[in-house]
Amino acid sequence: MGIRIFATGGTFDKEYNEITGNLFFKDTHVPQMLTLGRSRVEIDFRTLMMIDSRDMTEQDRETIAQNCLHVDEERILIMHRTDTMVETARLIAARVTDKTVVLTGAMVPYTFGSSDGLFNLGAALAFAQTLPHGIYVAMNGRALPWDNVRKNRRTGFFEELS
Amino acid sequence: MGIRIFATGGTFDKEYNEITGNLFFKDTHVPQMLTLGRSRVEIDFRTLMMIDSRDMTEQDRETIAQNCLHVDEERILIMHRTDTMVETARLIAARVTDKTVVLTGAMVPYTFGSSDGLFNLGAALAFAQTLPHGIYVAMNGRALPWDNVRKNRRTGFFEELS
Amino acid sequence: MGIRIFATGGTFDKEYNEITGNLFFKDTHVPQMLTLGRSRVEIDFRTLMMIDSRDMTEQDRETIAQNCLHVDEERILIMHRTDTMVETARLIAARVTDKTVVLTGAMVPYTFGSSDGLFNLGAALAFAQTLPHGIYVAMNGRALPWDNVRKNRRTGFFEELS
Amino acid sequence: MGIRIFATGGTFDKEYNEITGNLFFKDTHVPQMLTLGRSRVEIDFRTLMMIDSRDMTEQDRETIAQNCLHVDEERILIMHRTDTMVETARLIAARVTDKTVVLTGAMVPYTFGSSDGLFNLGAALAFAQTLPHGIYVAMNGRALPWDNVRKNRRTGFFEELS
Repeated sequence: MGIRIFATGGTFDKEYNEITGNLFFKDTHVPQMLTLGRSRVEIDFRTLMMIDSRDMTEQDRETIAQNCLHVDEERILIMHRTDTMVETARLIAARVTDKTVVLTGAMVPYTFGSSDGLFNLGAALAFAQTLPHGIYVAMNGRALPWDNVRKNRRTGFFEELS
Repeated sequence: MGIRIFATGGTFDKEYNEITGNLFFKDTHVPQMLTLGRSRVEIDFRTLMMIDSRDMTEQDRETIAQNCLHVDEERILIMHRTDTMVETARLIAARVTDKTVVLTGAMVPYTFGSSDGLFNLGAALAFAQTLPHGIYVAMNGRALPWDNVRKNRRTGFFEELS
Repeated sequence: MGIRIFATGGTFDKEYNEITGNLFFKDTHVPQMLTLGRSRVEIDFRTLMMIDSRDMTEQDRETIAQNCLHVDEERILIMHRTDTMVETARLIAARVTDKTVVLTGAMVPYTFGSSDGLFNLGAALAFAQTLPHGIYVAMNGRALPWDNVRKNRRTGFFEELS
Repeated sequence: MGIRIFATGGTFDKEYNEITGNLFFKDTHVPQMLTLGRSRVEIDFRTLMMIDSRDMTEQDRETIAQNCLHVDEERILIMHRTDTMVETARLIAARVTDKTVVLTGAMVPYTFGSSDGLFNLGAALAFAQTLPHGIYVAMNGRALPWDNVRKNRRTGFFEELS
């Protein structure tokens, strides 16, 4: 059995609407990024939702956690907006044991220049394969446990609490 | 202490010479790729050589292995051309124990379109942080032990021997 | 004497702020794009302002027109946001005769994927060298006289009035 | 009637073969580049051949010239490898009068980073629409008549003879 990947929206998959000048969701890019990376990891991909986490509710988080619980896979990767990644990780930790769940995202949309998306996807997929059971946030090349990480809103980087 | 990264050349760092139409080495791109990925992993970077492995000798491999032995770091990432990555891994395994050494590269030069470089760098950096001591080849999103991997020269993908 | 290029802001030079998720102006990219295009056209480049045309006033337009009048060059290229490009062209036509003035811009910021910026810059620079005196909007590969062009706000394309 | 565009190969359309490390022709990219540039110019596109000009014969050049003669369009753009662009232009000039024929190409393949392709395509398409009848080489943002241009093989730039 391989890795289960869930897409939930977030900056990762935003695109630029040239008529309005706004950003919007069109399709997820994860499958094409895995092809670009020439990945041979066995994965099962599913889009759960395409929501900017500023619009994400506790019910949406519960949906993500329930999906983690009920899939057969023991190793799960979740693409998520960075602003509330820790909140979602916390809820999953309250629901899910005996699995390795890794959350990742991007600070810059994949379709733009200067995106950290490909790098984060590679790192998170590797962490999902090797980390012991637990819930982790994988950003900036590192994986931190859900209860020892926060996003520094000034710099945009993720750091340990301690 | 962080991760030691060695650059040794390979397709990863090739560039296109528009006057001759040939590919050549200019500078390594790894530091700028780590910045693009917004990496916060503590690393120490060193260029050992810039050699296409078709020109790589046993002496060059020995140089790489000796550097792995003598640095203080216990976790090492080596950027290497893919064609002879397994040969170099084999020699390192004969010289180095008690360290985690991960070799990675790219099938397409980083400066070109459609490069697997960023994805591989993210994955390999994650594997270097989490894998138990041993020598590994990290390509196509997976890390395989040096003695259970080969490059399929027809498809370009890395696969297990068994 | 060469071509005078004026930057005035517009989508062309917007960048993505990964902390806020908003777009903003940082620096103009025109000089680096001319280098990328390996341009050998003699040019004199000046940033007049960096304004989103939704914030552009008649005074700003007057500034642009006065600069066109007072520079020695007879051939001028203006980088401008697309929404109000025709309005600015109209004012310049009221102030400037005996010069070839070409306005261009981009529907997608240059730093993003899928940008029409490089293509438009090449086309507009060519039109600035060859068109007879007059004021023109150069978008979508064509140059249309200021009094026979409008932006179709639904499609984003520029078309003739007739 | 619009502009006739002929693709004949050249660096413009080369791609990197990641298995062999060599460059090769796959498909022309011109139609997708016109889409990226959001071009609204009426064009008729045809691939005549996909030949690196080091392999191009006088017969191939004659084929290109005959096609220029026999199409209905009066304005023609030819995508061509840069090394022998002037030679082909010379033969066309001997065969074709009463038409505007513009030759362009790229120093770096379109699919690579740092390509001048999009910029050159925009410029050449503009020159094809505005220049008086004659045969021209459009590179580096300028259009030079076929009998007053050469490629500087050391720098890669095109310059006037005088």
